[in-house]
Amino acid sequence: MAQQTKVGMVKEKIKEWIVNGKVLPGEKIYSENELVKMFEVSRHTVRQAVGDLVHDGWLYREQGAGTFCSTQLIQGQPQSRRDAAGKTIGVITTYISDYIFPSIIKGIESYLTARGYSLTFACTDNDPEKEKQCIETMINHNIDGLIVEPTRSSSYNPNLHYYLEMEQKNIPYLMINQFYPQLNPVNIILDDEKGGYIATDHLIKQGHKKIIGLFKSDDLQGLNRMQGFIRAFRENNIPFFPDMFVTYTTEEKDFIYKLMTLLQDASTRPTAIVCYNDEVSLQVLNLLRDLKIKVPEQMSIVGYDDSYLAEASETKLTTVTHPKTDMGIEAAKWIVDAVEKRENEEFKNKQKVYDPKLVIRKSTSTVSRPAAERKQVII
Amino acid sequence: MAQQTKVGMVKEKIKEWIVNGKVLPGEKIYSENELVKMFEVSRHTVRQAVGDLVHDGWLYREQGAGTFCSTQLIQGQPQSRRDAAGKTIGVITTYISDYIFPSIIKGIESYLTARGYSLTFACTDNDPEKEKQCIETMINHNIDGLIVEPTRSSSYNPNLHYYLEMEQKNIPYLMINQFYPQLNPVNIILDDEKGGYIATDHLIKQGHKKIIGLFKSDDLQGLNRMQGFIRAFRENNIPFFPDMFVTYTTEEKDFIYKLMTLLQDASTRPTAIVCYNDEVSLQVLNLLRDLKIKVPEQMSIVGYDDSYLAEASETKLTTVTHPKTDMGIEAAKWIVDAVEKRENEEFKNKQKVYDPKLVIRKSTSTVSRPAAERKQVII
Repeated sequence: MAQQTKVGMVKEKIKEWIVNGKVLPGEKIYSENELVKMFEVSRHTVRQAVGDLVHDGWLYREQGAGTFCSTQLIQGQPQSRRDAAGKTIGVITTYISDYIFPSIIKGIESYLTARGYSLTFACTDNDPEKEKQCIETMINHNIDGLIVEPTRSSSYNPNLHYYLEMEQKNIPYLMINQFYPQLNPVNIILDDEKGGYIATDHLIKQGHKKIIGLFKSDDLQGLNRMQGFIRAFRENNIPFFPDMFVTYTTEEKDFIYKLMTLLQDASTRPTAIVCYNDEVSLQVLNLLRDLKIKVPEQMSIVGYDDSYLAEASETKLTTVTHPKTDMGIEAAKWIVDAVEKRENEEFKNKQKVYDPKLVIRKSTSTVSRPAAERKQVII
Repeated sequence: MAQQTKVGMVKEKIKEWIVNGKVLPGEKIYSENELVKMFEVSRHTVRQAVGDLVHDGWLYREQGAGTFCSTQLIQGQPQSRRDAAGKTIGVITTYISDYIFPSIIKGIESYLTARGYSLTFACTDNDPEKEKQCIETMINHNIDGLIVEPTRSSSYNPNLHYYLEMEQKNIPYLMINQFYPQLNPVNIILDDEKGGYIATDHLIKQGHKKIIGLFKSDDLQGLNRMQGFIRAFRENNIPFFPDMFVTYTTEEKDFIYKLMTLLQDASTRPTAIVCYNDEVSLQVLNLLRDLKIKVPEQMSIVGYDDSYLAEASETKLTTVTHPKTDMGIEAAKWIVDAVEKRENEEFKNKQKVYDPKLVIRKSTSTVSRPAAERKQVII
């Protein structure tokens, strides 16, 4: 078991080199001896790890020459640095260093760096005025392609003409996580309506009826998750109730106070909360700890994004998957294809929708009967 | 020809009585003699008009008794006042007495009044806070069904739970013109994306390339029309340009100043404007008169809604159709069906999308070559 874990660790490390572009397609990797020293593992472990990676197509062996990084990596797109000489891809996201954004960016970066592209990043803090500055900067930098996460996608975006001007200049762009409907751009998104639905349906199937939906209302992700939340109520014939929605925005983040008033009275309080994402779930967990409400015994919580926070929290979170790094890699792959005109006409109509899955951990359980009811049963 | 017009006039008038409920299903209409006097037409004209209406199913004859209003009226839904005894339908729209709203409401009112329903109206002035008050009032009035035009549909609506509570109470509601996506309600709308597209495509086909899109950005109608506007540019390979969008909202209505700056320089100014609606087109026509820019010689204008304003304006407007009264009648018919549980399960999944058409009048023409260019040709 321990042996297997070590093999896994070595494999992950070598894959990371490849994904991050530290080892390029066609380049020789370190020798067995070097790997033994670097990882402080046995020769047997190194052999097994390298053997697995050859088998999986990450590496290939050349008789008498050594072991090399495969040229057929990342979904069969062999690529070399020469194609990208001097080319720059811009990346605009709402945030960069927080939450799931490093993972998404890692995916973008690994794919593009491995292919010799330069990258330039900017974040909007979900403010359209900053988005405008970001795009202007990008255009001034003569970027060759742009990956964008929309800013405040649930309202009219005043910067649409910038994107249209990019089309004019034949600079391909695509949107991730969401897109501006008026632009109808190439996009890679998650089926957030379904995500909201499966999170809520899971709770209802566990016997919950009074469930709060806590959603961000200034991006379409939040509103689509809310739509799925409502559908789960309808399809299961669960009664709606006042105060079932608690919403917040980029500017007005304070949902804690509103939630507190809804949770104070034990006899009327809901038994579960569907949260916009894992980050918000953690804030809710903290509030529940302060209020001495036990999770999941007295309150079930579902997060969203299956981020590192879902496993880092005291109570491991039941949550909904987000492709994160894979979405980044996919976006990078598409923009490279468009920049290098490999499939330009096809590019214009592209959309990928990831199917979200529920990851069940420890923050949800069947609804417990109220204390009063239990007492009656005992008597 | 004149004879035919008189027959048409008499027919329209009698239909109006029926639609407005002045003559109820089963009631006898005026005698031939009375109709001759009322309309100041010949007996021959009255006979032909009544004959046509009998043929079309609006009226029926009973031997020796006279001519009666059909009980099978309005798309085969026989109805009497008794079914609706004491029932009230609420109607919430953004506006009531302006623009196309009287026509929509007339459609709703005529159908419901003819069937003995009471009506209660409220308008939100496109303000969600007022919408909240409207719904609370409606619920307190114990309405049996509700027809709603959404308020500020392009942002998150904070009153969703009221609608869900109505579902709880089995009060049917439906939305017209647009709907809140999270609710996914029964709705009767117009294909506004297509409307924006055909308006813009018409101008492009007339040779226009520099076309401004003037849209309201706080309702989905405006944003969908903008989406069609963008699609027309793309499909015709017309270059985008900065300042191609001029937008306004319920609070910030002042687009005139921005438009003025774009129109001042004759050498760079656009040759056409696609307007959010006819009301806005009229404001634009006034501005153009002040700036001494001739319509359509120097500037083409397309409106939207084919309202009375389109024909009342100095230059009759090319515009896009809106069903108005017909949409009102349809909404009333659906809500009656739901209230009387005739097709309750079917009701839940209903949507009707009207297909918009372009009405070409005098505000658009082929693009004229700039004066400089014409001069060169003459030389």
